[in-house]
Amino acid sequence: MLAAALALAGEQGVGGLSMDAIARRAGVSKETLYRWWPSKADVVLDALAERGRETIPLPDTGSLREDLRRFLRATVDSAEPGTVRLLHALAAASAADESTALQVRDRFLATRRSDLGQLLGRAVARGELASSHADLAIDLIYGCMWYRLIFRIGQLDYGWADSVADVIAPEPSARQGEGPTR
Amino acid sequence: MLAAALALAGEQGVGGLSMDAIARRAGVSKETLYRWWPSKADVVLDALAERGRETIPLPDTGSLREDLRRFLRATVDSAEPGTVRLLHALAAASAADESTALQVRDRFLATRRSDLGQLLGRAVARGELASSHADLAIDLIYGCMWYRLIFRIGQLDYGWADSVADVIAPEPSARQGEGPTR
Repeated sequence: MLAAALALAGEQGVGGLSMDAIARRAGVSKETLYRWWPSKADVVLDALAERGRETIPLPDTGSLREDLRRFLRATVDSAEPGTVRLLHALAAASAADESTALQVRDRFLATRRSDLGQLLGRAVARGELASSHADLAIDLIYGCMWYRLIFRIGQLDYGWADSVADVIAPEPSARQGEGPTR
Repeated sequence: MLAAALALAGEQGVGGLSMDAIARRAGVSKETLYRWWPSKADVVLDALAERGRETIPLPDTGSLREDLRRFLRATVDSAEPGTVRLLHALAAASAADESTALQVRDRFLATRRSDLGQLLGRAVARGELASSHADLAIDLIYGCMWYRLIFRIGQLDYGWADSVADVIAPEPSARQGEGPTR
């Protein structure tokens, strides 16, 4: 049912989506669908959360920078055009309405934040990242991604993924010494 | 005219705004208003850009972290409820429509990005920030701000401003050594 919802939403946009159409595509009754999800927004958010977990593995290489690179490259890969259309629709609805924002935040963003939080938590445990910085790093990284998506700033590509990893987890020698005055 | 537009937009939202009402409030003719701005969106974006420049000074203390703290605290101060409503409306319209996004990006965001870019550029010249990190730092910082605004994640307060400054410009000793295993 979740896959059917995502496929439909990708084809027709969230506006053209209905519980009826999701049930038809999934080959279940509308009653079954409503038993699990109260609204089409809930189906779509759970579908995005599930697909995120499936397509974006949590790497554990022992290096924060390498983990971040892999995680963000997989995030980039998962953002094909249908998904980007969905993300735009979620951002528009969230910016316009607080209760929608809370639903998107708690039902979908929370799962992505939790995965990235695990990855950063391991780096904190290794002493690679200050624990006081870990929570904000989640906002900085996903904020950067959404900001670029919403306002069409640059591309979300592997170059972006690697640059974010470099800034959040710089090599000890990279932070100082690259300035032109040194 | 710009101040009149912002005052009206803050009171009534962008939806309730009209070129007529802006002209009346500013005490000018509609013809005068249209001579300078082709649409109400342009008036609002220029007004936000102008007010940003007026209310958020560019500090130059010689320290990236201190400059960022002051700049971001002033940014927080400028985000009173009427402005936040406007920012939400801009984000919603931008996420929903690419040409609106480009207009918002090039007419308003560009001025904020340019100011922050100057601040970061000075840090690059002092050797405090890798030049390869400066552009992405703009996306990370403003991205974090918009992400929290749009999805109602936490508060935009001085604590947030100081934390962002700490992560983007950590003390040399802070990066390593705060992890619990050291």
